[in-house]
Amino acid sequence: MTSIKLGVIGAGSATFSMGLVKDICVTKGLSGSHISFMDIDEERLDVVGKLAPRYGDQFGSDLTFDTTLNRKDCLMDADFVINTAAVIGHQTQMKIIDVISKHGYYYGRAGVGSAYYNLKLMMDVVRDMEKLCPEAWLIQSGNPVFDGCTLMTRESEMKIIGLCHGHYGVHKVCRQIGIDPEQVTWQAPGLNHNIWLTHFIYKGEDAYPILDEWIRTKGPEFWKDESVTTPPEKGKDVTTIPASEEADPDFVAAAQRKAWDIDLSPAAVNAYRMYGLLPIGDTPRRLSWWEHTDLATKQRWLNKPWGGQDSHVSHPYYVRRLEIRLAEIARLAKDPKADLLKAIGTSKPHEQQIPIIDALVNDNEGRFQVNVPNNGVIKGLPDDVVVEVPAVINKMGVQTYMAGELPRSIMLNMIYPDWIRMERTLHAFKTGDRAMLLWNVLDTHQTQTYDQAIGVLEEAMKIPEYKEMAEYYKWPEKWRSIKL
Amino acid sequence: MTSIKLGVIGAGSATFSMGLVKDICVTKGLSGSHISFMDIDEERLDVVGKLAPRYGDQFGSDLTFDTTLNRKDCLMDADFVINTAAVIGHQTQMKIIDVISKHGYYYGRAGVGSAYYNLKLMMDVVRDMEKLCPEAWLIQSGNPVFDGCTLMTRESEMKIIGLCHGHYGVHKVCRQIGIDPEQVTWQAPGLNHNIWLTHFIYKGEDAYPILDEWIRTKGPEFWKDESVTTPPEKGKDVTTIPASEEADPDFVAAAQRKAWDIDLSPAAVNAYRMYGLLPIGDTPRRLSWWEHTDLATKQRWLNKPWGGQDSHVSHPYYVRRLEIRLAEIARLAKDPKADLLKAIGTSKPHEQQIPIIDALVNDNEGRFQVNVPNNGVIKGLPDDVVVEVPAVINKMGVQTYMAGELPRSIMLNMIYPDWIRMERTLHAFKTGDRAMLLWNVLDTHQTQTYDQAIGVLEEAMKIPEYKEMAEYYKWPEKWRSIKL
Repeated sequence: MTSIKLGVIGAGSATFSMGLVKDICVTKGLSGSHISFMDIDEERLDVVGKLAPRYGDQFGSDLTFDTTLNRKDCLMDADFVINTAAVIGHQTQMKIIDVISKHGYYYGRAGVGSAYYNLKLMMDVVRDMEKLCPEAWLIQSGNPVFDGCTLMTRESEMKIIGLCHGHYGVHKVCRQIGIDPEQVTWQAPGLNHNIWLTHFIYKGEDAYPILDEWIRTKGPEFWKDESVTTPPEKGKDVTTIPASEEADPDFVAAAQRKAWDIDLSPAAVNAYRMYGLLPIGDTPRRLSWWEHTDLATKQRWLNKPWGGQDSHVSHPYYVRRLEIRLAEIARLAKDPKADLLKAIGTSKPHEQQIPIIDALVNDNEGRFQVNVPNNGVIKGLPDDVVVEVPAVINKMGVQTYMAGELPRSIMLNMIYPDWIRMERTLHAFKTGDRAMLLWNVLDTHQTQTYDQAIGVLEEAMKIPEYKEMAEYYKWPEKWRSIKL
Repeated sequence: MTSIKLGVIGAGSATFSMGLVKDICVTKGLSGSHISFMDIDEERLDVVGKLAPRYGDQFGSDLTFDTTLNRKDCLMDADFVINTAAVIGHQTQMKIIDVISKHGYYYGRAGVGSAYYNLKLMMDVVRDMEKLCPEAWLIQSGNPVFDGCTLMTRESEMKIIGLCHGHYGVHKVCRQIGIDPEQVTWQAPGLNHNIWLTHFIYKGEDAYPILDEWIRTKGPEFWKDESVTTPPEKGKDVTTIPASEEADPDFVAAAQRKAWDIDLSPAAVNAYRMYGLLPIGDTPRRLSWWEHTDLATKQRWLNKPWGGQDSHVSHPYYVRRLEIRLAEIARLAKDPKADLLKAIGTSKPHEQQIPIIDALVNDNEGRFQVNVPNNGVIKGLPDDVVVEVPAVINKMGVQTYMAGELPRSIMLNMIYPDWIRMERTLHAFKTGDRAMLLWNVLDTHQTQTYDQAIGVLEEAMKIPEYKEMAEYYKWPEKWRSIKL
């Protein structure tokens, strides 16, 4: 039994933070620990600050908590730090996507995303940690995990693990094809958001034939299903979702769940028949450009009616659902009589953060899916690229492994291009070279002409929320001196 | 002085073969050598078979020659082999491009090129050499040099050097900006058709400022120039080029020269201002998708009026020029009184093949631009990838070198993607996996939808000249069993 200090950066995400509180309460080995919640949003932080000790009391734990707007206070002498912060929120992301779509792109960022801000925050956190808690582990839980963890582990000696939800997609696959996830062992290595089911064993036998049977007999029906609802028209303001729907969070949740059910979408199955392995979690969501050109195409590849989670109809629903859940949690915080154990639950941890901490400090060994430097685990990738692979974690640390290799076709079509994209992102971030941003836009398949790329890049740089980024990224000297 | 046996595969290219004869005649150290010309086209081979000994006689050399339709005879006991063969000729390439353009592509192969045939021929030649002349050097002079030399050097222990004309683009740059190429030292390393001018020294000083001055003062005028002619309309059959033009090879040659003058095109200069280094030779021709979407766009980036050498107007002119030149050479072969020394010239070698042989056998050391396995010369690329780099060649062999590194932005945007494309080509070639071909089509920027990719791939596979390839490339088993 070891009490720790856990710092949480970006703790204003109340769902995430209260999930952590629940997980640490049910983990006896961490009793007596202290959690310091930090966020820059005072109002949202306040919700967590009220709920966490009340949940702890109701649970009967001896955990202690504080909240702070000051990152340094949160990190000081921490044993573990969880960084879940996203600098640019969902509402702003939607605004940015709107600006970009005016240049002829369907609901996306045309290669001018906001990675700059999260990468900068990650580096700021890790530099602070080097001074304030140099022995602590950083558990990076916000995106971009692949780019960010590669950057941080190259630049810093801190101990860093990146985590993502995506691999739980295997459980969704199991439930979909009618086998008990608890009876399944599996491996899905790769890069974050780009992982592939190399091992899929149900009760000791290869489960891929069960998947094949499902695809043959159930797939066509599943792909036709439009049961949830008809999504609203393009351009419809999400705030105009009828009051009846707004009042029914179950509807929004069900609709949203449907949008996320892409694990066995035609896109996923097409990749499976191309490569022989099923893409897992967020992987089907970003297999290719050709799934994302418009809503009808998304519906074809990522299921009807939502076309996956990145369409102009499903994304606003997702954000709306987050807002509804946030409002619910805020209501809980205002109601001193609320039964928090019932509202938040007392189930064993689903997320990996707390069990990993328990494994590291109490030697309560477990198997996890982590993002750490490759160091030879995935053949054909450099050692200093962060990969997502299975690991055994115990008091001795993180021991990664992987049985076999990824098929060469997956390496060539999916892994290498993503690796190089990541390297381009980091090079752009480190040099502030705007020509690298331009290249990124040009490399976006929906870009049809050079002038379109220049146009969307220049307009993106005028978005108020991109101001700091626009000042940072400068054209190379030769670019400025040569007129074409 | 050492006499050798040189085997030439694809010798029916009379211009190339007679250039070799001229080069070897003027290279005193190789007197007494024997050249064996091999081709599968008896008629074209016959032209070379008649001209070569007559040129040798007129020159007063003691070289001997034979021609053969049998590759094994050509290779038997050879000391050097030059492979310049292209399995699918220009006329067929134009036919293939026509089929493909019907699917919505502008004058290209949409990722379904004929690399399969040349790669197969290269491997056949190198396997024959292992048996018939295991100590010989292979000088690979036909495309794809990058893919093919990487394949052969991985699969075989034979000594292999790949050569290309592209690096002579530096001389064209020098002449364009008004400096004497003989007073310039330079380096342009990279991958074949993807090389970058890292060192550009005129009379001991950096010549890039001279280039900058030319861009500033002369560039705009040069880019506007449409002096040669107005190209014919799209779809116009090249055989309908007026007789007056056909009778005037100078016109066709001048027009074609203009199409090839892309060394300081806006495309090249744009890359220069983006990366700080000038792309050389064929590099500006394949910098990006956005230069090639239609004729007007090609004219913008690769000069007016031809839009570079890969447009629907310039390519037929190029092929026509080749035919005219071939006809001229055939006429020479029929005229026993022709002054071949005058017609073919007696200048010192411009091509690298014979001087390299002279360096290897007579220790007549020289500096060359070669394609050989990287082995650490370009940092960041595996050892077994063939790179194009400077080399000193003498009796001890090929010693490659490179001063410094390529800029990281060039590595990330230009070199790595090309490396991975090459690996995909080789993987497809080795496995016969049709899904890899599909990926290649999908990866082509002009592809707008998945169905378009399937459509063009299926139609390309029905082209009679692609029959063997279509039989070789099979869909993966899962692809065949799963219907979507």
